[in-house]
Amino acid sequence: MKNPKSNFSEWYTEVIQDAELADIRYNVKGFLAHMPWSVRTMKKMYLILEDELERKGHEPAWFPALVPESYFKKEAEHAKGFSADVFWVTEGGSENSKFPERLAMRPTSETAMYTMYSLWIRTWRDLPFKMYQSCQVWRFEGKSTRPFIRGREFYWTEAHDVFETQKEAEKQVEEDMDTTGKLLKELAIPFIFFKRPEHDKFCGAVSTYAADSIMPDGKLIQLPSTHFLGQNFSKAFNIKFVDKDGKEQYGWQTCYGPAVWRIFGAMVAIHGDDKGLVMPPSVAPLMAVIIPIYFKGSDEKIAEKAKSVKKLLEGAGISSKVDDKPEHTPGWKYNYWELKGVPVRIEIGPKDIEKKQLVLVRRDTGEKITVKEGELVEKVRELLEKIQKNLWERAEKFFREHISEAKDMEQLKKTLNERGGLVKVEWCGSVECADYIKAETVGGDMRGTPLGKEEKPKGKCIRCGKKAEQVVYVGKAY
Amino acid sequence: MKNPKSNFSEWYTEVIQDAELADIRYNVKGFLAHMPWSVRTMKKMYLILEDELERKGHEPAWFPALVPESYFKKEAEHAKGFSADVFWVTEGGSENSKFPERLAMRPTSETAMYTMYSLWIRTWRDLPFKMYQSCQVWRFEGKSTRPFIRGREFYWTEAHDVFETQKEAEKQVEEDMDTTGKLLKELAIPFIFFKRPEHDKFCGAVSTYAADSIMPDGKLIQLPSTHFLGQNFSKAFNIKFVDKDGKEQYGWQTCYGPAVWRIFGAMVAIHGDDKGLVMPPSVAPLMAVIIPIYFKGSDEKIAEKAKSVKKLLEGAGISSKVDDKPEHTPGWKYNYWELKGVPVRIEIGPKDIEKKQLVLVRRDTGEKITVKEGELVEKVRELLEKIQKNLWERAEKFFREHISEAKDMEQLKKTLNERGGLVKVEWCGSVECADYIKAETVGGDMRGTPLGKEEKPKGKCIRCGKKAEQVVYVGKAY
Repeated sequence: MKNPKSNFSEWYTEVIQDAELADIRYNVKGFLAHMPWSVRTMKKMYLILEDELERKGHEPAWFPALVPESYFKKEAEHAKGFSADVFWVTEGGSENSKFPERLAMRPTSETAMYTMYSLWIRTWRDLPFKMYQSCQVWRFEGKSTRPFIRGREFYWTEAHDVFETQKEAEKQVEEDMDTTGKLLKELAIPFIFFKRPEHDKFCGAVSTYAADSIMPDGKLIQLPSTHFLGQNFSKAFNIKFVDKDGKEQYGWQTCYGPAVWRIFGAMVAIHGDDKGLVMPPSVAPLMAVIIPIYFKGSDEKIAEKAKSVKKLLEGAGISSKVDDKPEHTPGWKYNYWELKGVPVRIEIGPKDIEKKQLVLVRRDTGEKITVKEGELVEKVRELLEKIQKNLWERAEKFFREHISEAKDMEQLKKTLNERGGLVKVEWCGSVECADYIKAETVGGDMRGTPLGKEEKPKGKCIRCGKKAEQVVYVGKAY
Repeated sequence: MKNPKSNFSEWYTEVIQDAELADIRYNVKGFLAHMPWSVRTMKKMYLILEDELERKGHEPAWFPALVPESYFKKEAEHAKGFSADVFWVTEGGSENSKFPERLAMRPTSETAMYTMYSLWIRTWRDLPFKMYQSCQVWRFEGKSTRPFIRGREFYWTEAHDVFETQKEAEKQVEEDMDTTGKLLKELAIPFIFFKRPEHDKFCGAVSTYAADSIMPDGKLIQLPSTHFLGQNFSKAFNIKFVDKDGKEQYGWQTCYGPAVWRIFGAMVAIHGDDKGLVMPPSVAPLMAVIIPIYFKGSDEKIAEKAKSVKKLLEGAGISSKVDDKPEHTPGWKYNYWELKGVPVRIEIGPKDIEKKQLVLVRRDTGEKITVKEGELVEKVRELLEKIQKNLWERAEKFFREHISEAKDMEQLKKTLNERGGLVKVEWCGSVECADYIKAETVGGDMRGTPLGKEEKPKGKCIRCGKKAEQVVYVGKAY
């Protein structure tokens, strides 16, 4: 790594490339070739997420990648919101003949899934109906793209639920927040779950909720969002059920879209340091790397020891690898595996063989610990737990330090420019003031009110001076 | 189920729908809405396959779904072979503006992956380079589509490997056969791995190998295929490495494409019966279903017992579910779970509570077994093993019975019409004779020679009477 993390933007670009997470040289704007180190990690993230969704009663499905334009247009707000973002398939086959109707590459799957839901849901006995799919989506983003943050192709999961009552659907939002919390906590990513203001809702939703975390440069990153759809889509897609009294009713819906791809990007950004990635043990593709330090005369013993250490760790469920490539020095290997973010390094040299000991090195702090051979598994396990905990504490401290308050526009501007993060202000609730604040601060968005923790405003709107209606958080976002 | 399996085509359509595997009513030809029961099963199949590929040194990756037309055209044979099969993305964004270059939705990923391989592979130290991705592909199939057999969107895995030498690449074909064997054996699907004749190769390949199994109607189904690409693609895509002597060389390549989606279809077809699906325990979404047979006065005891049985089984790693829906009779539930193919049914009635026993019913044979409470886990485990073994033996017997020999065209035509399957014939090797045989038998394809088991021909070509050069198998395929 050439760039220190304090040059965040350059550091991020460099770490994506040098740690071999993705290659941006695939010649279609906003599309990445994802390399094994990121894919292995994201597959682990998917396991955690899908397990949690299934535990909460969601069933897995796979829906088509293509959506006819006519499905897409059934919910007017939704179609309007996404119209600028779609890749269109217009022709195919031997004569490359034009299709009578354009097909959208799904930018999200409400319209594909709800078309089928209207056939599948018949009576109250079919409810709640909770289904998810993990897939790629494609969005023709106009803004500049950035690996794992904003792309024209990305990987996510989308859960779409239908309920008998409004109350149950609203409760689902809280369940989705819990799922978000479980996943982000495993990845040691702190966040606040906001109810977004009216003017910043998902197109077609009644209300939108989303988790925001804070990146090292003080900019916000939106992580999973979840939407209370009311009956907007059930009416557009005719999702009806016969209730317990024999009456036909429209279902109440929610959708939830955790993007593993983007969460991965946030994780890389939040935990990394000047030496490269720092992977949380919970999802690291490799928990420990074993580096034999060969020395004339004890080569064989060291190689044997390295192998037996690996076997021991694997037996205990701790994934590990011996790096015995002869073309590299131990020093080169230290750098390489630090760049890759492997949580624990185990060094084995001639002295260690002699003394029946091993040297463990923590990736997060660099601390060296000498342990007796017999204690190895126990000590590595202990270290992995400590690292996981430390990453959380470090990230949480940074997060807390980047939440502040502003009493006037000057203070808001100053804080957003100097530190970024989330700044609490009082607001009258008007879109005009929100727009003004955004323009004045060059990008300061109203992120909304923390779900379940609404605060009562005491004073005046930071912009217009009228009575404040809400306490909201403002921040500049990716 | 209305159709017996002897009406195979109607039976297959019905079981896909009634067992809720997929819904064909999504209004884009050849695209399915995949429902939880099939998705859960295919996810298990993916785990088996990916585990095996990784064990053999493949690394996972995710490549873009879109391929620029210019990449696509780099290997002439390949482009020609797929030109009729592509969905093209031609426009997008706010003005729906036309792109300067069309983008293909990947029908397969050679051209996407090898573009990056040429950047990633530098020296012999990078080889062998073995990578796979699990993804959807899209092919604008002209032929009629059928769920899990032929579709315009399907799910597969593709492994693409690069080697230093021709010999290593050729050896990879055998490794791929072993992987195919491991997966199909787990699913109790018998097969023969053929080297396809010259005129039936993958476009761009030097030679093509593929597994054929036999469907209940005697038609063949091609399952995983693997291709020795020689240096055709490495030259087209400039995949070069510096060898141990410092000389630049083109890599030797293979690609392997196991389609989990199609294998699932074959599995459904091969094991099912007049009552519906029969799932191999290895991939069944549920291994056992528990049906409480409520009876006035002992309701509570039965409900409690059902719960404790489930807990016991889950504790032993046997997935299970209690079906206690009050709206259905036990008889209705028996039918439902038989249709779904759950391997073992456990019935609990008042008499069973009294006698401290449980009734187990095998899905594959219908056999009822009464077991003591204390033996439950052991007996269920035993039964699952027996079912897995029985499915293999049954399928293997059918497969063997549908392999025959023909000495002349009359016998070949008669066998293909009456029984189907694979028919061994001697052949001169000319495309003309292959074409004639196909026309004369209305679709009898040359499937090739079994890999590693080539037989010496003793007589004359079944069609032209000239000296035979090969012993090949002929069959009509899906």
